[in-house]
Amino acid sequence: MKMTENGVFSRDKVLTIDTMNPTVKNVEYAVRGPIVQRAMQIEKELREGVKKPFTEVIKANIGDAHAMGQQPITFFRQVLALCSYPELLNENMFPEDAKNRARRILQACGGGSVGAYSASQGIDCVRQDVARYIERRDGGVPCDPDNVYLTTGASDGIVTMLKLLVCGEGASRTGVMISIPQYPLYSAALAELGAVQINYYLNEEKCWSMDLSELESSLAEARKHCNPKALCIINPGNPTGQVQSRQCIEDVIRFAAKERLFLMADEVYQDNVYAEGCQFHSFKKVLFELGPEYSDNVELASFHSTSKCYMGECGFRGGYMEVINMDAEVQAQLSKLVSVRLCPPVPGQALMDLVVNSPQPGEPSHITFMKERTATLSLLAEKAKLTEQILNTVPGITCNPVQGAMYSFPNISLPEKSIKEAKALGQAPDMFYCMKLLEETGICLVPGSGFGQKDGTYHFRMTILPPTDKLKILLAKVKEFHQKFTQQYS
Amino acid sequence: MKMTENGVFSRDKVLTIDTMNPTVKNVEYAVRGPIVQRAMQIEKELREGVKKPFTEVIKANIGDAHAMGQQPITFFRQVLALCSYPELLNENMFPEDAKNRARRILQACGGGSVGAYSASQGIDCVRQDVARYIERRDGGVPCDPDNVYLTTGASDGIVTMLKLLVCGEGASRTGVMISIPQYPLYSAALAELGAVQINYYLNEEKCWSMDLSELESSLAEARKHCNPKALCIINPGNPTGQVQSRQCIEDVIRFAAKERLFLMADEVYQDNVYAEGCQFHSFKKVLFELGPEYSDNVELASFHSTSKCYMGECGFRGGYMEVINMDAEVQAQLSKLVSVRLCPPVPGQALMDLVVNSPQPGEPSHITFMKERTATLSLLAEKAKLTEQILNTVPGITCNPVQGAMYSFPNISLPEKSIKEAKALGQAPDMFYCMKLLEETGICLVPGSGFGQKDGTYHFRMTILPPTDKLKILLAKVKEFHQKFTQQYS
Repeated sequence: MKMTENGVFSRDKVLTIDTMNPTVKNVEYAVRGPIVQRAMQIEKELREGVKKPFTEVIKANIGDAHAMGQQPITFFRQVLALCSYPELLNENMFPEDAKNRARRILQACGGGSVGAYSASQGIDCVRQDVARYIERRDGGVPCDPDNVYLTTGASDGIVTMLKLLVCGEGASRTGVMISIPQYPLYSAALAELGAVQINYYLNEEKCWSMDLSELESSLAEARKHCNPKALCIINPGNPTGQVQSRQCIEDVIRFAAKERLFLMADEVYQDNVYAEGCQFHSFKKVLFELGPEYSDNVELASFHSTSKCYMGECGFRGGYMEVINMDAEVQAQLSKLVSVRLCPPVPGQALMDLVVNSPQPGEPSHITFMKERTATLSLLAEKAKLTEQILNTVPGITCNPVQGAMYSFPNISLPEKSIKEAKALGQAPDMFYCMKLLEETGICLVPGSGFGQKDGTYHFRMTILPPTDKLKILLAKVKEFHQKFTQQYS
Repeated sequence: MKMTENGVFSRDKVLTIDTMNPTVKNVEYAVRGPIVQRAMQIEKELREGVKKPFTEVIKANIGDAHAMGQQPITFFRQVLALCSYPELLNENMFPEDAKNRARRILQACGGGSVGAYSASQGIDCVRQDVARYIERRDGGVPCDPDNVYLTTGASDGIVTMLKLLVCGEGASRTGVMISIPQYPLYSAALAELGAVQINYYLNEEKCWSMDLSELESSLAEARKHCNPKALCIINPGNPTGQVQSRQCIEDVIRFAAKERLFLMADEVYQDNVYAEGCQFHSFKKVLFELGPEYSDNVELASFHSTSKCYMGECGFRGGYMEVINMDAEVQAQLSKLVSVRLCPPVPGQALMDLVVNSPQPGEPSHITFMKERTATLSLLAEKAKLTEQILNTVPGITCNPVQGAMYSFPNISLPEKSIKEAKALGQAPDMFYCMKLLEETGICLVPGSGFGQKDGTYHFRMTILPPTDKLKILLAKVKEFHQKFTQQYS
């Protein structure tokens, strides 16, 4: 009991840090962690006129394309406006293909309104369009719309799948293999679910590729203390920017089959492939090319989203997952589980539909759509190259090529003295580095420790999304800062 | 191992009903359960030309106003169209207040796009508008925007709060008190989290009101085997349609204070009050009227949504929660937890903003807005009355007044013979009844067993949302069916 401002006695809270759910306390999510909080404070200080050695904060901490100035695809937004306010269907200002898409989506909605709940698994015709998109993408490998679940962004699908998988206690607790470095949604979800996180390290020397021997030894070690049930892959890679080879995917599938692991393929960057000689191969396509021994057996969930690629429509929280070879009873449980949350946001479902059913040759919006799409992807490819090139000119920074996705995850050499100073402050050395970078230059990056890295190595993740002029400033500032930092602590 | 169609041996699945998460298996959600699945099948059969004793399925199973023909508020949809496709700001077809709202929302979005992620807690200016709305609603009781969290519908907020609360094992496992009958999101979330569901029964004889003595005895009993930490209230009630009196809310708050329970007030139907002499009182307002001994101490989370009231915009998945007297460290954990899912859908946030910042007197859209709002609420009030009146003319059906919300939860007398037949089929007797009603009349209601009810009593929940002409058909058919059913099994 303590006295409050109002002069009454205040009791202890019911819900305190000691009485709350301990698994929630274990959750960490660096992409929106302390560094981003501080960046937002600094932005506020700048608005209030506080003097800083810079005039704006440049945020390269999160894959948020529109926030960095990328323009939405005109066609998508026209259809969304038509769906929101169908009166516009009577106006002459929209192309016929946009109107047709809107009419088709509205017809599939209860009462012809995007304000109605959809089926929990998603609007029927959207799932059918997703299935046809997957079939085209995978050279005709069949896709059953009943295996497609629309989601609230890819994160929602990933967490739902993990939720199905996790059970047991002690040595029989479910273990899930995730890459290191990883996208911290995975570690956060596993912490919250109380599952065992099994790390497998990507090979930085080989452009962040997956090593079969590493998978094997990591799994063997994990089997001593938990029950490994699933293997998560992010391809193209976040935060690594790596694009997996067909051979690698084949190896991973054979490994999963042999070791009896459920595969989760996070393929939200499937259109973001920039490097010469690299190509996106879906896990599903490779699985089916390996023949029925694999395609009839290996359980796979694949995730996609409206938030990345050339769309960058994060705010709509659209996405889908496809489940392959899932046990029928489990799938019924999945369908039940998603029904509790009623349905994914319908505007996001509509947007997902447009992504998988974009304007076709001959339709009035096709040329503009292709121009916008190509321009966005070409610009990203340029910025990927630029980022790699400039970072590699900095002594003490080594940067793998950004083959795909939207991120660079360069290795940074930190002087011993800075590591000691960070540790004295109880900070990860790369957090100390990134925080100093933010304070001195206004650049917001995420320390490698938020994604995981080999002990004794340090990194940061930066997005390649800022507009080219700002990206150049950012890279120049990082270069200058790194040199100054190295001198200061040498 | 078994042989598949392709002639290869199929292995056992990694993920089976026996190896999956057992807490997920315990989840039930009647509002979208087997009866709704069957209704969808029947709709498909009707489309395929299968002959039935009816020509359409009338769905009164879910509070989905637009699906039942309710029209969206014009102003809301105009602003959403403008936000989706800002080119429209250059057109003359939209009123200035709609354009101003859209500009304000877009300015608050990263890159001026609703396709950017927002802050995880929600867009700043939307949270500020929510805070001002709450202050107006509660006669000036202050609201700090930092205590407002935008959510993906109210369900998301409720599950998040429960997630924070649940911990412990065995006799120290967290218990959460919920009303019976309840909205099955609560039981589903508690099952999934492995928390103990503590039932308190509403008093059907007193119009489904809360009894203090029932709360006390239910809590005392629960303390023997778990650690009760929270008390959930739905007001106006789902599925009961009851509106709580100010006195009752006061009693509940005093009870929560005395017994040290965290209060969760589901207030998504706050505009849906129809009955003479009934009024919505927010838990927060009453809490502050009780003075600092309560308002400085009792922990409360209150939930609202864009899905109900006069808006009925379920598909957008918009909502907010306000937390009051939450421990600062716990609130930091809450903020971290919501950051993992990045942000609620931005169109839903925009819509929430319009609800709390609707057209004001003097603005060009005000008259139309008020006309639409009033028409929708008046129609709902009429249908509430109609439902109660007609159902009460049926021998064997007793129906409390629908004071608020969107549902009636009448008591149905079932003949002994039907109860026996249901039990022989392994069905709840009211499920047996509702399933037969569906097959014979095409009317889709949800059995009371999906919401919970006193042993030996039977109910169904029906929404009052169908258009008046269909609602009349529905009620007439229910009447006829009930009489036939009673005869058949007597």
